[in-house]
Parts: sequence; C-alpha cells; structure tokens
Amino acid sequence: MAKEVNVGLIGTGFMNVAHSFGFRNCWPVWGGECKPVMKCIVSRKEETAQKAALEQGWEEYSTEWREMVKRDDIDLVDICTPNFCHVENVQETAKAGKDILCEKPMANDLAGARAMLEAVEKAGVKAMCGFTYRQVPAIRLAREMISSGELGEIRHFRAAYLQDFIMEPDFPLIWRLEKEYAGSGALGDIGAHITDIARFLIGDIESVSGTLETFIKERPKEQPQGGTKLKDTAGGSEYGKVTVDDAAIWCGRFADGPIGTFEATRFAGGRKNHNGFEINGAKGSIAWNFEDMNYLDYWKEGEGARQGFRKVLATNEETPGFENWWPDGHIIGYGECFVNQMKEMMDAIAEDRDPEPGFEDGVKCQQVLEAVTKSHEEKCWIDVQDV
Amino acid sequence: MAKEVNVGLIGTGFMNVAHSFGFRNCWPVWGGECKPVMKCIVSRKEETAQKAALEQGWEEYSTEWREMVKRDDIDLVDICTPNFCHVENVQETAKAGKDILCEKPMANDLAGARAMLEAVEKAGVKAMCGFTYRQVPAIRLAREMISSGELGEIRHFRAAYLQDFIMEPDFPLIWRLEKEYAGSGALGDIGAHITDIARFLIGDIESVSGTLETFIKERPKEQPQGGTKLKDTAGGSEYGKVTVDDAAIWCGRFADGPIGTFEATRFAGGRKNHNGFEINGAKGSIAWNFEDMNYLDYWKEGEGARQGFRKVLATNEETPGFENWWPDGHIIGYGECFVNQMKEMMDAIAEDRDPEPGFEDGVKCQQVLEAVTKSHEEKCWIDVQDV
Amino acid sequence: MAKEVNVGLIGTGFMNVAHSFGFRNCWPVWGGECKPVMKCIVSRKEETAQKAALEQGWEEYSTEWREMVKRDDIDLVDICTPNFCHVENVQETAKAGKDILCEKPMANDLAGARAMLEAVEKAGVKAMCGFTYRQVPAIRLAREMISSGELGEIRHFRAAYLQDFIMEPDFPLIWRLEKEYAGSGALGDIGAHITDIARFLIGDIESVSGTLETFIKERPKEQPQGGTKLKDTAGGSEYGKVTVDDAAIWCGRFADGPIGTFEATRFAGGRKNHNGFEINGAKGSIAWNFEDMNYLDYWKEGEGARQGFRKVLATNEETPGFENWWPDGHIIGYGECFVNQMKEMMDAIAEDRDPEPGFEDGVKCQQVLEAVTKSHEEKCWIDVQDV
Amino acid sequence: MAKEVNVGLIGTGFMNVAHSFGFRNCWPVWGGECKPVMKCIVSRKEETAQKAALEQGWEEYSTEWREMVKRDDIDLVDICTPNFCHVENVQETAKAGKDILCEKPMANDLAGARAMLEAVEKAGVKAMCGFTYRQVPAIRLAREMISSGELGEIRHFRAAYLQDFIMEPDFPLIWRLEKEYAGSGALGDIGAHITDIARFLIGDIESVSGTLETFIKERPKEQPQGGTKLKDTAGGSEYGKVTVDDAAIWCGRFADGPIGTFEATRFAGGRKNHNGFEINGAKGSIAWNFEDMNYLDYWKEGEGARQGFRKVLATNEETPGFENWWPDGHIIGYGECFVNQMKEMMDAIAEDRDPEPGFEDGVKCQQVLEAVTKSHEEKCWIDVQDV
Repeated sequence: MAKEVNVGLIGTGFMNVAHSFGFRNCWPVWGGECKPVMKCIVSRKEETAQKAALEQGWEEYSTEWREMVKRDDIDLVDICTPNFCHVENVQETAKAGKDILCEKPMANDLAGARAMLEAVEKAGVKAMCGFTYRQVPAIRLAREMISSGELGEIRHFRAAYLQDFIMEPDFPLIWRLEKEYAGSGALGDIGAHITDIARFLIGDIESVSGTLETFIKERPKEQPQGGTKLKDTAGGSEYGKVTVDDAAIWCGRFADGPIGTFEATRFAGGRKNHNGFEINGAKGSIAWNFEDMNYLDYWKEGEGARQGFRKVLATNEETPGFENWWPDGHIIGYGECFVNQMKEMMDAIAEDRDPEPGFEDGVKCQQVLEAVTKSHEEKCWIDVQDV
Repeated sequence: MAKEVNVGLIGTGFMNVAHSFGFRNCWPVWGGECKPVMKCIVSRKEETAQKAALEQGWEEYSTEWREMVKRDDIDLVDICTPNFCHVENVQETAKAGKDILCEKPMANDLAGARAMLEAVEKAGVKAMCGFTYRQVPAIRLAREMISSGELGEIRHFRAAYLQDFIMEPDFPLIWRLEKEYAGSGALGDIGAHITDIARFLIGDIESVSGTLETFIKERPKEQPQGGTKLKDTAGGSEYGKVTVDDAAIWCGRFADGPIGTFEATRFAGGRKNHNGFEINGAKGSIAWNFEDMNYLDYWKEGEGARQGFRKVLATNEETPGFENWWPDGHIIGYGECFVNQMKEMMDAIAEDRDPEPGFEDGVKCQQVLEAVTKSHEEKCWIDVQDV
Repeated sequence: MAKEVNVGLIGTGFMNVAHSFGFRNCWPVWGGECKPVMKCIVSRKEETAQKAALEQGWEEYSTEWREMVKRDDIDLVDICTPNFCHVENVQETAKAGKDILCEKPMANDLAGARAMLEAVEKAGVKAMCGFTYRQVPAIRLAREMISSGELGEIRHFRAAYLQDFIMEPDFPLIWRLEKEYAGSGALGDIGAHITDIARFLIGDIESVSGTLETFIKERPKEQPQGGTKLKDTAGGSEYGKVTVDDAAIWCGRFADGPIGTFEATRFAGGRKNHNGFEINGAKGSIAWNFEDMNYLDYWKEGEGARQGFRKVLATNEETPGFENWWPDGHIIGYGECFVNQMKEMMDAIAEDRDPEPGFEDGVKCQQVLEAVTKSHEEKCWIDVQDV
Repeated sequence: MAKEVNVGLIGTGFMNVAHSFGFRNCWPVWGGECKPVMKCIVSRKEETAQKAALEQGWEEYSTEWREMVKRDDIDLVDICTPNFCHVENVQETAKAGKDILCEKPMANDLAGARAMLEAVEKAGVKAMCGFTYRQVPAIRLAREMISSGELGEIRHFRAAYLQDFIMEPDFPLIWRLEKEYAGSGALGDIGAHITDIARFLIGDIESVSGTLETFIKERPKEQPQGGTKLKDTAGGSEYGKVTVDDAAIWCGRFADGPIGTFEATRFAGGRKNHNGFEINGAKGSIAWNFEDMNYLDYWKEGEGARQGFRKVLATNEETPGFENWWPDGHIIGYGECFVNQMKEMMDAIAEDRDPEPGFEDGVKCQQVLEAVTKSHEEKCWIDVQDV
C-alpha cells in the first residue's frame, strides 16, 4: 500500500493548474511507494482559494499560508507564488520542517536564492526547484546519451528560448516586467530554463559575456482583472517604466571545455514557447525544442552516406520518463512534464534522498544569470564563481 | 454546482488507462455543468478489477458487467472491451437505459454495428462512438476551416495511417490478428480512424475501390501474460493463421465531389502512430499527422511570393478544444484527447443532445470499411450505399 | 581526348532551356570519353530558332527537322517537342540511324509508344526516354538501397505528384489540356513520372484500379503569346472544353508483392512540384520529394530507442550521381538533373550500350497509364499486361 | 548584340570549378548587355593550367598571372587563389586597370583588406568581393522584406554557420588551418559569410564580444596530393600545430538597435554546410539555412489563429534572382549562386556601376572579425570602429 504524502500548495495563478494536474495524475500513471494527496490550497483571498480548491480538486483551502505550512497533516509544500515571495515562503516552510517544491527561478537575486538554500539545508528538509524541462523524456534521453559518453566529448551548446507574448507595445506592465517583483525579465524567467538545461546536460558554466536589451521602455500599467491567463490581462491609460530586460544574449564557456551561445527573448515573433538547443559532441549531435518536445534530433558519427539527423520520437518504453505513458508514437505534452516532476518528488521522499534538481541547482543557475547581468553592466567577461 | 455523472467502465486493458485519464482530468480542466465521477470499473477477474480501480482511482470495482450497467447509481457506461463484445455490451446497457460511450470500431461487422445503433435508438439513450481523433484541437480547427468555406471547394483527400508494431514475423497472434475477435485488421482498427476523419471533415464517401494484403500469413500463438502493454505480449512455439489484413489501400469518391486515397498499414517501418492526411481545396490546403498532433500545416491562396505551407501551432485560445489547456506553445498529447472526449460526452448530457460522433457515424464508417473489403473480393468499385 | 558527339535538338520551348543546360555542363562537370557538342537547334520558325541558338549557345539553327536529323555531322537527336509529335520525330530519326533522347511521355497513346520502340529497335539506334528524376542522386541512392537488399522485402509504395499551376479557373486551355495534343492530363504528364520512379525502384506493376477527375470542365482558349514560360500564357474570351484529366488517383499491385497508392494532380494548392514518395520495406523505409530533392529520409530497423527517420543529405561522393558535383552540403537543383541525364547518354554511347531508361521503359510506363484510364472507364481492376 | 567581357581567372582549386560554372551559364540563363567570355585560366603549373582550361572550357591557359592581368584582351580578373595571395593579386590587377572579382575573405588581416580597397579605389576599377550567399534568391527576398519595412523594426539576428569536415583528429593540417596562410580559421572562412549576411540584411555591427576555441591543437602535416577535393587530402606521420580557431562564437550589437548571436564552427557533427540564420522584427520573422537554400521560413504578424512559420519556396518569378531560372518548385543549388554572381558582375559592367558586394563590404566584414579576435584576447566588448 502506497504511503500518502499530504500536499499544501501556495498560489492560485496559472502554475497552480499545472501543478494540480501533476499531482492528480502522478500516482495513476506512475504508481510508486508514495502517493500525493491534494490536501490544501492557499490564496490570500478566500473566494479565490475556494474556487481553486473546487476546480482542481484540493480537499481544503486556506487564506493563511503561514498556518498551512505548520499543519501536522501537511508533508510537502508546493510554492507557486511570484518570485519575490519565494524567500519568505521557503524560510517559513523549512522552519516548519516540511519538504518543499518551489517554482523557478529561486528568488529575485542571488542573495535570496542563497538564503533559501541555507534555510532548507539548516532544516534538513528535501527541496526541489521547479525546472520542469528536466522532466521531458527527450531531455532525459539527451542526458543519458551525454553522460554515457555516447555523444563523445562535448564541444558546442547553442540554446535559444524564444517567445513573443509581449511584442505588442500596449501589452500591460504585468509584475513580470517590474524588477521589484520579478528580479529580471526574459533572463530570469526563461533564460533560467536554458541555463538549467545547460547545467543538467553539460555541467557548470565557468564564465559568460553578454548583453541585455529592453525594446519597449514604457507600457500601460496593468488593470487588475482576475483570471489565470494572459488574455485576462489589460492595460490602462497610465504608463509605467519597464524595469527588466526584454531579451538577453550571452556567450559562455563551460568548466569542462565546451563553448555555448545563449538567448532568451520575448520578442521573437512566431515563437510561442520555442525553448530549443543543439549540442555537438565528438561522436554525435542532438537538437531539441519544446514546441516539438517529443522529438530528439540525433546525428551519429560513422554512418557514412547513410548519415543524417534522425527524428527520434522519444515515446517508447526505453526512454526515461516515458515508460508508463502511452504506446510508442502517442505523444505527451506540457502537463505530463508536471506529472513526471511530481513523481520525482514522490520518489525522493520514498527513497529518502534529495530530489533533482535541488536548491543548489537553483542557486548555481541564479549565479550564472547574475554573472550575465554583471557582464552587461561591465562590458566584459565575468567568472561565474566571482559573483 | 455541477451535476455529478456516475460512470461505470467495462474493460481493464490499455483503453481503461486512457479513458480513466480522460475522466479524471475532464472537470478540472474544462469545468461545465456535468462532472464525471469514476464510480465503478469492471473486469471478469476480481484481482484485475481491484487493481485497476486502485491504480486509476475508481471508487468501486465489479466482476459482473451486466449487474453494473443496471445499477441505479450508474449514469454512463464506458465500453472498453474488445470489438467482438461491443454488441452485447451495448444492447444490455441500452436496455438498462444508460448513456453509452463505446470504443471504436463499432463491431466486427456491419450487421453488429447496425444492431448497436438500433439498440440505442430504441432505448433513447445517448451514445458516443470513440473516434478520439475528432477531439484533437488541430483537427477541430481543420473542420472549422472547411465548414466555413475558408478552404473553398474541396478536391482532394489523401490519408495514410501508418504503424509498424507487428512487422516482426515472431510478433504473436494477438486477438487483433484474428478475424473472429477483431473483425478485420489494419482496416478496421486504424482504417476506421481515417475513414471517420474523412467523414468528419469532408462528408460521406460514395464509392471505393481497394485491396487488402496480409504480408505475414502465420504467427506464433500468444501466451497469456497479463499487463496492458504490447511488451507484455509473447508468442509460443505453436503457429496459427493470421486471418485479418496487415494493410489496406483504397481510392474513394466523396458524395460532394472530392476524390481521395486511403491507406492503413501496420507495416510502415519507422511510423509509430502516423495518422496523417492532406486536404486540398480551391482556396487552401491543410495537412496533419498525429505524431505532430499540435500542428496543422496550412497553405492559403493569394499570398503571391509569400505563400507557403505554414506550421500553425494549434495551441491557442482561438483553437476549438484548446481553450482551457495551457498557454500558447505549450503542447498537449494523446491523453488530452480523451480529456476532451469526456468533455464532449458531459456537455451532451448537460445539454440533453446527442454526443458527436454518435453511433450513426460508427455505422457509416463500418459501411465504408465493408465496401472496401467487398471491393477487394470483387476487384471492382463498390457503391457504399449498396453494402 | 574525348570523342565529340554532335547533338541536334528539336523544339524551342522550356525543355530546350533545360536540355541545353544539361549539354553545356555535362562534360565540364563529369568529363568522360564522349563530349556533347551543341551543334544545331531546330524550330519551324526561323526567328525562334535563331534566338534559341544564340541564347543557349548552339552553333547552328535550322527550320527543317527532317533535314537536320539526316545530316552526317549529327550523331544524337534530342526531341523536345510536344508529345503528339514524338512518334514521327522518332521514326524519322531512327530511320536516319541517329541515337535519340526523347522527352517523356513517349506518345499520346500506347500504340504510338510501341511504334516508337519498334522504330528504334529496327534501326538499332540507342534511345533514351527523358524520365529525368532517375538522375536525382537521392533517387539513385534509393535504388541502390533497394536493389542491395538494404531495405529488405518491399511492402509499400505511396506516391503523389502534386502541382497547383492550373487551379485558377481562368488559366487558359493550353495544349496540355487537350487530349488531341497531350493524350492525357496530369496522368500522362506527372503520373508518368511517379510510374517510372515506381518501376525504377520497385519493379513492374501488375494491376491497377483508379479514377480520373476533371475539376474545371471549360477554360478560356489560349491566345498565342510567344515565350517559354507559363506567365507568357493568356486566355481569351472564348471558351473550350478541357478534354483531359486534372487529377488521377489509383491503387496498384506490383508483380513482386508490394502494394501502392498513386496520385497525380494539378490541383493541390501550395504544392509546386511536389513529386514525392515513401517506400516501406522489411528492414527500412525511405521517403523523398522533389521540392527537397537533395534529401532522402531514411529509417533503419534495429536502432531501438535511437530510431527515427534521418534526413540523409545526399550530397557526398558516395552518392551515385553526386560524385563530381560540390562539397558535401552544397546542394544541387533541377538543372543538374539534366546534366546528369546527358552524362548517362554520353556514357551509353561511349560504352556502346543502351541508355537507361530506354524506350522499353517508356512503353511499360505508358501501359500502366493506359490501364489506369481503362480502370476508370470500366470501374474495375485492370491487369496491366492485358492493355 | 551583347558586349563580350573577356575574363581571366587565377587559381585552379575548387573555386575555379564553381566560378567556371558561373561564367559558363551566366549569359544563357540571364542574357543581358554583357556576356562573359572564358578567356584564360592561370596556374603556376602548366599541366594544371592546361587541364583546367580543357575541362572547364577556358580558351587559353597561362602560368604567369602577372602577365595575364596586363593583357589587353582581358577585361575582368577573377581571383580564386588562397587568401594570403589576394593583396598582391588585387594590387597588380588594379594597377593594370582591370575590373576584379575576388574570393572572400578579402585578406589575412584588416591591413591587407584595406590595401586592396585602396588599390581599386585608386585605379578606379570595379571590384566585387565573392560573398556568394548574397546571390541566393531566398536571401535576396529576405533583404527585400527587411528594406521595405515588411518585417518592421528588426530586433534579433541569430546565425550559426556549422560544418563538420575537420572533426576527425587525423584530418591533415591543410593551409586553411595555418594562420600564416589563412589568417584565421572558422572565423574568417565561414564567420565571414554570416557577418556579411548580417551586414547585407540588417546593417553595420557596432560592437562585439566573443571567444575562439581550437579543439584539436595538433594535426598531421599534409602530404601534397593534387586534386581539388577534400578527399584528395591526406596527412603524414609528422605533426604540426593548428594555429587558427576551430570555432568562434560572439554576441554583437548592431548600429540600428538589433542584437545578435553568431557562431562559426567546423565541429558541428552532422552539419555539412549549415549556414543558417533567424531574424525577428516587430512585424515578422524569417529563418533560412543553406542546406535548404530555396526556402525562406516566414512568420507574419496579424494572422491570429492561422499564424505560423510558412515555408516559402523562393522559386518563382517574383523572387529576385530566380526570375530566369526554372518553373516554380524546381529548385536551384549551390552552382546557380555563382551563375547569379557573374550576372551581377556583368550588370555592373554594363551599367558602369559598382558591383555588390564591393571591397568596402569586404573591409567592413574583416573589421568585425578582427574585433571578435580582439574581444577574445582582451575578454571584453570591442567597438568595431576602434579596430
């Protein structure tokens, strides 16, 4: 009989829906020793909390997150609040001795991220950082191919996370566009993902040199609308300053020798969630992008006149993270990544080990992003460990 | 407050997992007036039934489907048994006055399908035939584009449903390869899907001419293994005759003028679930295949030197069937089609209307397949209405 | 020192430009024992002939094709006239004892094609039929893979040659749309190409069943414009009947066991010259289309979780027909196929052997097309050898 | 009657073959007021010169380039020698008052490039720098779309020129891998191309920051083999130091605002000649790569749920540089770019204007590359104008 793990989730924005999808389907799909129970969801507003609980299937709701995290019948706290709340959320939860799943990026700055890591280390609780893309079967296959040496010595990494959702000049000044709440713009939001993927697949980044750009400097201030979707967002007649980057580009050198180019932008027209990369090794190359997340393009040396990038449809029982899903050729989507993520958290609890990626990964990622910012300011290469 | 619809599901094979996924996520994703409750799952073997109930989250289980369909607290019966059981399952359920969702294809032959239709019409219950692909947002978008006239008069349909899972000569003689249980082979299993898609998008098929082929005539008889996956299947040392088609190809003429080519095969190496089609109209063309199910390739006339097939990523709020899923660019997969399917069934109940596709669609599809078989036997074109 | 082969070309339409390109570059690219000399080009109108000679680099021009083919200093006659002239052109040339390259399709009907074959056999001259696509390196690679057994026993062929250039209802009634001059429509023009490719790669077709369609029944009669391009074509106010097919679809059974679907249409919006096919064998699959003519998609069995269709860029020294072109990755185009075609003709002369494809291939192709037409008329399967 | 322009070409390596192809087909395809005559080809070795003249169709050959450029009957000198010879070749030719087409990159360093520019300016001769990719119809279409404002304000450029031909550690130390002869490695050879494309499409680059890498530090010294192809190259037992970069990556800021990432490498396994870029503007995005050179992927704003990157097959009469080639859908290849290049040179002579791109473009390109090298050395951003 599986052990039940009671979950409390803080936040009722879009991430609540994705994480609830993850918890709901985790055990039916994957089974395992630990089974999440959707115990309690929290929002400051009672009406919002109640609605989310009903819709997503949480047993209870609450308006007091500090109380919730202390409840004896809560085992795991899932933090889906805006970045700037993470530090306090984590510190209180760790103090209460509960395991943690926290959305990325860690905090608004490196100091905050380090405080979070310190809190969970001191408390001895398990903590996972929500870099969901590590849960994509094709990416886990990529890692397997690299760590096994199948691709040989890695030489190149080139990644671009491209979106276009704020290209319209009258798109409002949401919290993600204000430094005070979001810390940074495309860099921290989506640049964080490619940085984590780079670290997951290739290893630590030693030094970086890049530049940031804000194409639209002022935007209409947001009018509160409710709802969890972007379309529920509207701007008023008053304008405010965009204080984060719209786009970031940088070059990096990895500790083990590879070199890489990185780009994160919300101004690539036509790219909706194009989180993509290519990696070239001495014996093979791979390429991937989220919009075709079930495929891993793969080139293998030594095939002579039969060589070519093959579209590996990573939907079979040999692909890590797909074993319990559908028959081969029956693809999965974004939601399934959260199902896989929750399985990793459950397995970590069952096996009494740290989940992957942990808060140390979150801190190291933030360190790279801060080095990029510093490189932009100082117009030179920055050693990541000096940040 | 949503009205609860109690569901009983018969069958514990692979389709149980997919349908359970559909019921579990239907209301959290789509909301609506009716909310499915996973009440009872049925298998002849108690152990199997109990295991499925526990794993997939059904409140109860049973070993007696005839009893289950009569229970007062069951509103909807979902039939996930092998084809040859469908007629009896449906007749009993209809007699009990319960609404029905039945997996495709309808029955092993046209007579059976017609008996099923008669049963539900007589009983006045709602009945849906499980052609899941109608629930793919990109396909619903395709239909919208055709029915609105956006593509102009349709001229061509070319479809091929390609799989490769029985290419190995020692793949065992599973029930799907015996006429007695499956009715037909690739024709009825996957040819049914492209036929239904053709009818959904373009309309009725008037006449067909085709041919069937069985490439591997004998296979090792299956040894019972348990489990819901193909890998759980193994062959013994005794051989039996394959009595269904491995592949079917045919040409067809549609009632409204278009002409089309059709192919269904389990011998297309490298194609896992390549259910694909292209449609050419006077004003536009579209192409789709399931392995990239979130995309609809679209060519539009009148774009001069800017023309070209565009990859429409059908993942936005304007795309029917995607409205309540994720932000644009965050794709969905096979499981989500079942979530959408259950929503259609719930909406039909809420609105007291027939769900789409109904049993009449199932009968008309079977009629086409039977015409193809007859064309193969008589080596000439067959009028579908004459079958 | 290479032996010079003096060429006379009849016709000054578009094919003259393509063939001249072929002759001009043949020897500089491929070298070889025989070197074509662009001796004389023929048109009924002196002005046209003179212009073509000047522009394309022919040493002389003539208005009398019957005289030209008899000249002692002409070794090879290249026939680029409309289909309905081929029989007479070939008969006279063969009688004069000259080798022949004749554009496809052979003639307007099977009887004519057979007469052509008889003429060259009787005269003992070499004769090549202009199925240019056999010269594409990727297709020659495909053939190598099939004939060597690399793809195993072949089961499926599916081909569609898609164009859209006559979709506009006011596109004029050019000679290609009149049975008297063209013999048939899409069937003979582009259906001939996929039929020849099928025969080249897989072998003879035993029986067929298909249907033809003419979507636009009347068109404005053409006003003579001069020029070699479609844009130079215009319609007047008087209308005439379209007497050929706009589209043809058929199923076929090959002598060696495979089954196939075929389609030829000029009404596939967005497809400019989409001559494409896929072949599935027991050990591998390949796919190709002319718009990406340098690629051969290839799936190979036995690659487990690394399997997938690979995009083989057939641009290397191991690919037959590419050896003397550019460095790997530097693609070739349509014109280069004619360069390769002329090399095959030159090699045949040098080696005193029949060029490939010969007139027998042309006749066999025409036989298949005539069987399709008969199948359309009689609404049943037709044995190709009975035609 | 067209005016004949007598051409003398220096060099008999691979570029001779490509340029000869260009001259041979230029006038038959494009016509025009000026018609190139392949007058004389030069190599230091008589045998080599004679062979090249015979094979490629040059009227004469010579072993003395200094004499050839002075001949009265030579109008245009085409310089296809290794980089380190360019300065002297150009200076002598300019002094002789002849027009010049010189292969890229200009020289081994910026000083040399400037000397070349000075020489032609002083002599008042026309000079073209051989950035062939500007002649690709899809790229010319791209430029048209940008300069007309169709794509709106440009924000992003991301380019990677990827090859893999020196990945094998025993690939010999050819002249391209020695700084003395080649100036730089991937940076100057292929990085020059993406830099020129960037300048052609978007404008001047203001500042850069990048890094270089040499993955294989020593290689077997080359044994002379003769032949114009890479396969004709072999290494001996003695090793020498690789003194140029294997790969270069950099970020750049354009004068007009856009930001860009750049990469040039010969270590991207599976990429043969993958010269690719994507550009994002406020109203549209485009993407291209040489291995599919006939396509321009294009996304256009304002298409709502019908949006998507469309594959524009740039093979029609409205596409600049394709007008006189084949019917739509009949693609061209690498060789055709040289045909187009020669047409530009002929037109410039006919119209008495500077050809595009000129030597100033060559100098500006070299300036960027030198800034990248400096950035690598000084580990900081470099203003291009300061180099």
